Amino acid sequence: MTLLISGWVALDDIETPFARAESSLGGSATCAALAATQFTDVRLLAAVGEDFPAVERAKLEGRGIDLAGLTTVPGGTTSRWGARYHFDMNSRDTLFTHLGVNDGWKPILPGGWEDSGTAFMAADDPESQRGLLRALTAPRATMVDTIKLYIEGAREGVDAAMQEADFASVNETEARELTGEASIAKAGRALVEAGARAALIKLGEYGAVYVSADDYFVAPGYPLEEVVDPTGAGDTFAGAFLGYLDTVEAITPSEIRRAIIYGSAVASFAVEGFGPARLLELTRDEVETRYREFRTLTHFEEG
Amino acid sequence: MTLLISGWVALDDIETPFARAESSLGGSATCAALAATQFTDVRLLAAVGEDFPAVERAKLEGRGIDLAGLTTVPGGTTSRWGARYHFDMNSRDTLFTHLGVNDGWKPILPGGWEDSGTAFMAADDPESQRGLLRALTAPRATMVDTIKLYIEGAREGVDAAMQEADFASVNETEARELTGEASIAKAGRALVEAGARAALIKLGEYGAVYVSADDYFVAPGYPLEEVVDPTGAGDTFAGAFLGYLDTVEAITPSEIRRAIIYGSAVASFAVEGFGPARLLELTRDEVETRYREFRTLTHFEEG
Repeated sequence: MTLLISGWVALDDIETPFARAESSLGGSATCAALAATQFTDVRLLAAVGEDFPAVERAKLEGRGIDLAGLTTVPGGTTSRWGARYHFDMNSRDTLFTHLGVNDGWKPILPGGWEDSGTAFMAADDPESQRGLLRALTAPRATMVDTIKLYIEGAREGVDAAMQEADFASVNETEARELTGEASIAKAGRALVEAGARAALIKLGEYGAVYVSADDYFVAPGYPLEEVVDPTGAGDTFAGAFLGYLDTVEAITPSEIRRAIIYGSAVASFAVEGFGPARLLELTRDEVETRYREFRTLTHFEEG
Repeated sequence: MTLLISGWVALDDIETPFARAESSLGGSATCAALAATQFTDVRLLAAVGEDFPAVERAKLEGRGIDLAGLTTVPGGTTSRWGARYHFDMNSRDTLFTHLGVNDGWKPILPGGWEDSGTAFMAADDPESQRGLLRALTAPRATMVDTIKLYIEGAREGVDAAMQEADFASVNETEARELTGEASIAKAGRALVEAGARAALIKLGEYGAVYVSADDYFVAPGYPLEEVVDPTGAGDTFAGAFLGYLDTVEAITPSEIRRAIIYGSAVASFAVEGFGPARLLELTRDEVETRYREFRTLTHFEEG
């Protein structure tokens, strides 16, 4: 039972109408890894610079994450990202993106990690993602995520990576951009027809939709009282989704649905805190309680 | 078991990227009434002009709707509305709105209709809605809907009508406009805190959310292959919701959830056809089959 997570570890400057933080622990792989620790053992494959603070590394170690794949690039600086959220917390302006060590870095799987049972390729150069997927000997479940940068700059690679993985993770805008379909249902089906084994479309406060050749599942949005910081919610969802799947005996449609709800539950906690704060203190009991709340949210009797 | 539906009966000119129709049977009350006939006896209170075609009246009669409250205003013309849908079918331009007989018409409850068990006040002047609600002797469930015109022109009346009814029906934009809250969860809670007994927020392809002081329910969006004409989906939902509630022994939270799914199911059929075409031929068996599909869409096991 081990989940490989590859992607970026970063330091974020985030500003919301209610709070701000500088050099806060962030990055897609960070969020996914912290979320996944609720369920399974996590291996983190990412690069940081010499400026990456020991205190942030200690937070990852404190959650038991295997950091043998967290490479410190000599002379490099850690990726930095700055964003300002609008009043509605649903939209934001990116203030800056400094790729730092991630500019051109090619992740290489540490020896012994080929046996990872599951893997999440957070947004990265699709050729790197494909290389890592192929380096795994017998993964039970793999998922690929991407961002606008690669959809626009390396479209064929993105398509190929999503088709090689078991699950393609996209948000609504990406689903529309990849398929040219306006409706979520049609976009999901188009992704599957194009070759993805299954698509997970993240809809923010509207929840998420899962589409495969023979299944369609709608997960509800959790009615949060306050969203403190939505940064990384999608990666948190993905990390928890695969973290749960890593623990099941067989990856059945029923377990996939459970995994989606676990992903939704952990992501709903993550946005309650600033940066990774809430994930760092989250307990499995809290996750289970919220899972039960998700059942209550959507339950209705036979007609 | 009788549901009173008050609102507008109209003739619509509708243009989508794929089809167009002129003088098609439409209007909020029409959609709601046709939907409700799946479940219960319907009384329709509305005004038309002398130009209202006998063939359209026959369609309503053909579904068994009691038209004793469908007043033909001497010398008047039926309301007409024209709209053009954009390529994504999610947005539209209103080309014209001719109020016709609805300009200043005050609905008066026909004698004997005070005993209606349930009532839907489709969008109309809120003072008319309130007058009708008060004229009912002992309704078991009432619902009020509105449109931008009244939110902007008669806000206090809209608030009062929504607080006098059991259920306030709003779409997402209206929920935000009425409450100043960006998130659906907060907007729903704000409507309830402002006095509505419960709010039903319609989210189009994302489904619907129900919020009361002690319940929160999320209904999924149905994954439609083709949306032919989304006109009137919200009123269709409302008509089916109340039509089902009219038939239950006791209006419990569990029955309200069932009613929301019946509303969603009937609305999902309505948008598959142009104007009221699909509703006119819809059978209860089809509705029950789709109800079961909604259960499959959202079902997941305990954690």
